[in-house]
Amino acid sequence: MELSAYLPFWKQLTAAQQERLQHAAVLRSASAGTLLTQGTGDCIGLLVIRSGQLRGFLTSPEGREITVYRLLERDICLFSASCMMQNIQFDLSIQVEKDAVFWVIPPDLYKKLMAESAPVANYTNQLMASRFSEVMWLLEQILWKSQDKRLAAFLLEESALEDSQELRITHEKIAGHLGTAREVVTRMLRYLQSEGMVELARGTIRLTAPDRLRQLAGEDAC
Amino acid sequence: MELSAYLPFWKQLTAAQQERLQHAAVLRSASAGTLLTQGTGDCIGLLVIRSGQLRGFLTSPEGREITVYRLLERDICLFSASCMMQNIQFDLSIQVEKDAVFWVIPPDLYKKLMAESAPVANYTNQLMASRFSEVMWLLEQILWKSQDKRLAAFLLEESALEDSQELRITHEKIAGHLGTAREVVTRMLRYLQSEGMVELARGTIRLTAPDRLRQLAGEDAC
Repeated sequence: MELSAYLPFWKQLTAAQQERLQHAAVLRSASAGTLLTQGTGDCIGLLVIRSGQLRGFLTSPEGREITVYRLLERDICLFSASCMMQNIQFDLSIQVEKDAVFWVIPPDLYKKLMAESAPVANYTNQLMASRFSEVMWLLEQILWKSQDKRLAAFLLEESALEDSQELRITHEKIAGHLGTAREVVTRMLRYLQSEGMVELARGTIRLTAPDRLRQLAGEDAC
Repeated sequence: MELSAYLPFWKQLTAAQQERLQHAAVLRSASAGTLLTQGTGDCIGLLVIRSGQLRGFLTSPEGREITVYRLLERDICLFSASCMMQNIQFDLSIQVEKDAVFWVIPPDLYKKLMAESAPVANYTNQLMASRFSEVMWLLEQILWKSQDKRLAAFLLEESALEDSQELRITHEKIAGHLGTAREVVTRMLRYLQSEGMVELARGTIRLTAPDRLRQLAGEDAC
């Protein structure tokens, strides 16, 4: 599929704008683990994801991480081009989670498009509103939910993303998603195992009672 | 001052757009304590603040509150009109903190302006980016900072907003800003008092060593 199919505003651009965009966008690929940007200082451009999975995360002064959101096929990564937006004052890093192919749109070009075209500006607004909603969700999770509920929700999300009940993920990695320490994750996983909700083996976590995990995560209450 | 002086995009509107906006905007006043919106279901419109102070806050299922950001003179409140934006999926409430006078711009009208005018859409983008940055800041505070540091930072912010070293605020209210329990605030304030940084009296908190509070808040490190 062409870049145009991923940009809902494409048909509202002029022929000249379409050509500029087509010409400037570069198709890139990166393997799982690659760090695409480290903080907003790295302004590489908008990323339009054709395949794979990215994550946006924050890092504490001590090097602890927390995943703020994930980006899948057809998502557009805005904060890898945050230099083009005034008023963005935070340092989000972007990492490839699953081998990814994506277009990179240069920030200057996109900024110019936004200034010229109300549809592009409004679409960018919608993108930001989506990310904003995800961050507000996370904030509420951290504020009002206990860690075991957040862990249950994370395991269910992973299971949906991987389309599998058996997750190959380390406790360390989970800690980096949830913004906590590895020991805390290990302790909580053992608790979930003792409750019969998961089965732990070397390097894997099997969800044995997803319904009960869902109940713990409080998803039916939402 | 006129509404036009508060909207940076004013001169980029057509005469017809200016007239529509002027005509539809209503000047309102509300006294401290008034709840303007309760969750995003209440979509009253964009608020352009002429004087006073508002706060946006989240509420837990159990009724606990946390202040997400504050809005002062010349600020524009976007999330009191979140029905006009797709993809906004969180429930922020807006309350008057200090007697306020503000214009209300109907959401339908503003939405139409955004669709017509790239400058309006881009300005709205900037507004959202500012609020986004504030929420990310808060998220990092909650994740990586201890409660006493957050309390010290809050006391300094209040002191700056009130232009006074003596704050008239209850422990209950501080808890509602920080998203914690009253008892926790009282305990921390007593600790700050024992360290000589504040003096507590009935209904007031006096900052006796702002420099040391600043040090505790870690502001020099930022």
